[in-house]
Amino acid sequence: MSTQTVSPIASATIFTPQQLLTHWQGHRGLTRKMIEAFPDDKLFTYSIGGMRPFSELVYEFLGMAVPGLNGIATGKWQKWADAEKVNTKAELLALWDEATAQINDIWPTIPAHRFQEQDVAFGQWPGTGISFIFYFIDNEIHHRGQAYVYLRSLGIEPPAFWDRP
Amino acid sequence: MSTQTVSPIASATIFTPQQLLTHWQGHRGLTRKMIEAFPDDKLFTYSIGGMRPFSELVYEFLGMAVPGLNGIATGKWQKWADAEKVNTKAELLALWDEATAQINDIWPTIPAHRFQEQDVAFGQWPGTGISFIFYFIDNEIHHRGQAYVYLRSLGIEPPAFWDRP
Repeated sequence: MSTQTVSPIASATIFTPQQLLTHWQGHRGLTRKMIEAFPDDKLFTYSIGGMRPFSELVYEFLGMAVPGLNGIATGKWQKWADAEKVNTKAELLALWDEATAQINDIWPTIPAHRFQEQDVAFGQWPGTGISFIFYFIDNEIHHRGQAYVYLRSLGIEPPAFWDRP
Repeated sequence: MSTQTVSPIASATIFTPQQLLTHWQGHRGLTRKMIEAFPDDKLFTYSIGGMRPFSELVYEFLGMAVPGLNGIATGKWQKWADAEKVNTKAELLALWDEATAQINDIWPTIPAHRFQEQDVAFGQWPGTGISFIFYFIDNEIHHRGQAYVYLRSLGIEPPAFWDRP
């Protein structure tokens, strides 16, 4: 990629923390609709090509979101792990909603300098706070896209990608 | 979602235009590796659950990227359309590389105020410049995730999601 010169003024206006939170929670709302759209059993069992069932992907999203934000906010990281396993869609949705509230609570406690500060996520992955947050969001979009194929192959119409709460 | 109070100071440090360009081009580099990973015929024909082949999704990414950035940079929007159709992987990669260079050229011409300014993308979709750019990126991640399932179901190992050029 070639290098560009960009006015430093632009860096003040591109995206605010509040907009980024709204963006992420919009995606998380769509992921919640995807969890709801799966038949109860298929959520925990259905896969294509040896990939993980959607429930396993959701455990990964949950393992990143709140523990990751806590690390970004405080600089203290726990060991990386998927979220706890559950047995029903209702329990998975309850975990999801709990994380949604916790993300909203932690977000305003993130010190401004932490977005651009270098750290090592979960003691393993180097990057800036903002790079970690985009990894959480992008990873969720990526694996949720996979789940869209699961639903389509089951003959189920998934929620519209662009319709985010 | 509950509302939060976030320090206005934080808005200056969250993400610079240069970082966002690098982030997007990193994702586009991964999408390029996905195009390369498909067998030549499967790129244009393979699908699951009635969804589009990966080539059709790539036409959509290309239809958004350069025409969309031109709209954001200038305020002048063309009519929405997928990119031109091609017949070979080599031609599709050539279109991709052309768009990569054009994105790098257009990016520094985007006036700073356009990131937060309301507009109507392609004369159809209301939002801010930054919301359009994230739609382009997120849509690419979403449909590329779909293509990961196509490859896995063909018994092909896709490039690692986290390994972005």
